[in-house]
Amino acid sequence: VITVLCGGVGAARLLSLLQREATDFEFTAVVNVADDLVLHGLTICPDLDTVTYTLAKINNEVMGWGLVDETWRVNKELDKLGGQAWFQLGDRDLATHLYRTQRLAEGATKTEVAGELAAQHQVGLPILPVSDDHIATYLETDLGELSFQEYFVKHRHGVPVSKITFRGAEVATPTKEVLTALSTSEHIIIAPSNPLLSIAPILAVPGITDLLKARRQSIAAISPLIGGRALKGPADHLMSELGFESSSYGVAAYYGDLVGHWFIDEVDSDQVVRIEGLGATVTVLPTIMAEPTSASALAQGILSWLN
Amino acid sequence: VITVLCGGVGAARLLSLLQREATDFEFTAVVNVADDLVLHGLTICPDLDTVTYTLAKINNEVMGWGLVDETWRVNKELDKLGGQAWFQLGDRDLATHLYRTQRLAEGATKTEVAGELAAQHQVGLPILPVSDDHIATYLETDLGELSFQEYFVKHRHGVPVSKITFRGAEVATPTKEVLTALSTSEHIIIAPSNPLLSIAPILAVPGITDLLKARRQSIAAISPLIGGRALKGPADHLMSELGFESSSYGVAAYYGDLVGHWFIDEVDSDQVVRIEGLGATVTVLPTIMAEPTSASALAQGILSWLN
Repeated sequence: VITVLCGGVGAARLLSLLQREATDFEFTAVVNVADDLVLHGLTICPDLDTVTYTLAKINNEVMGWGLVDETWRVNKELDKLGGQAWFQLGDRDLATHLYRTQRLAEGATKTEVAGELAAQHQVGLPILPVSDDHIATYLETDLGELSFQEYFVKHRHGVPVSKITFRGAEVATPTKEVLTALSTSEHIIIAPSNPLLSIAPILAVPGITDLLKARRQSIAAISPLIGGRALKGPADHLMSELGFESSSYGVAAYYGDLVGHWFIDEVDSDQVVRIEGLGATVTVLPTIMAEPTSASALAQGILSWLN
Repeated sequence: VITVLCGGVGAARLLSLLQREATDFEFTAVVNVADDLVLHGLTICPDLDTVTYTLAKINNEVMGWGLVDETWRVNKELDKLGGQAWFQLGDRDLATHLYRTQRLAEGATKTEVAGELAAQHQVGLPILPVSDDHIATYLETDLGELSFQEYFVKHRHGVPVSKITFRGAEVATPTKEVLTALSTSEHIIIAPSNPLLSIAPILAVPGITDLLKARRQSIAAISPLIGGRALKGPADHLMSELGFESSSYGVAAYYGDLVGHWFIDEVDSDQVVRIEGLGATVTVLPTIMAEPTSASALAQGILSWLN
């Protein structure tokens, strides 16, 4: 089994690619929950849902988020009532949130609900929230402290950030399913998700980082930055705003001795020596998964490392 | 001002009729909240919503509940996920519940939210929940104890009931708006709502019954039973199951010295003497509001009593 540490879209694409191209392997997804929010009383888990929808092949490729064949009747009516319509909840998507919230109220864990939703959507691999406990990202910005979704959706991640905190992380416990996956899987892959917003809150859960450090040689990561830029989201400017170099090397330095092997894009080949200087090996290859040839090359590269 | 004690559909019809025909008067609705439920994390107030939707003329006349121009996309998807789709939440209706739940989470009271929704729907009269506190109807039945909505929606009020309790009622407080309405309005009308399920939980809030007893001569009620039968809902068989006579007299005896004047249907004219025996005056007239001629006669009867 290969365990993949996941944020949202980038991780979902990687899992989807691996499920298609690395059919000899089994995968387990360990997913960030610090983006989760309660809105209108509903517990919403954007990263879990993005991974689930993408693996179920019902994600909306055109919008880049949410579900295919989506409608927004409820949100339109909510807007008319003067409600908080900024989150743009789709009708199909709402069913997921209603289902999850009811099951949680009945006493199910987030892990159990994620399993039920994965089963109902016939996703072929375990999708595990890193913790069943409440963890919430807050960002200090020029507009004051913002919750993750206020920053990401309401302000379209356009506000400069001076500090990120993961409330609740220090007292959260990783689930036993996650601990088992991370200790027993042959390899661990860190998806090209936002290091500071998606992977950091996984690493912040007590026990996870120590467990990973002991397994450095089994751990590979794919750089989310290509030529210093993120394909999607604020990873590039967030790195700079928080004092890190906005490059593949910067991400490698940020993860430090957690990662034994790096996959970086051809554009960043000049950074190989610096990354090797951190004690990791490096594969240089095309990493853009949205493009079939490039995605296939990335999959082949990962397969070589796995074998 | 005339204050009307309200359950759902019957009360909504009465208020609608009075608003149309008794234009010289102002009305205030005091509404039952014991049917309210939390489902999928959403706070749902069926009686408040029925009254609001009906007065806003956006109620669904064909179905007899919910909103006109309704769709059920979310509920269909929820059903596919194996969720609790029995409550049949409509998409438009869901917007109300999302709005209310969010506002309550922000610290607004049920009274404030009811006022906001009434304003947004341009309802011309105050719609007041009897209390901002949590009150919940439970029924002892042959299938064990059921919550109100399990009894009413899931089992279509078809299960025999041996006992009804209004949990939380004894420690609930009527709102100051409700106390003001009940003490200062010239007349109070008890709508033809279910006495045991809709009006009883209003009367069960400490202070309400005492306040009403002191004003018996200003209080009229419309019998919800016609020839011993309810037009809608389980009022008739519930009366029998709980040891009351299922008739206009039975309802009058149940309310006892709360009501100074009764409006009963022509079909029940043989019960006038028995009801007068309870110390009330009686008007016999057509009471079926779904029929225009009959509704108009009822309105005229009420107007005579008011003047």
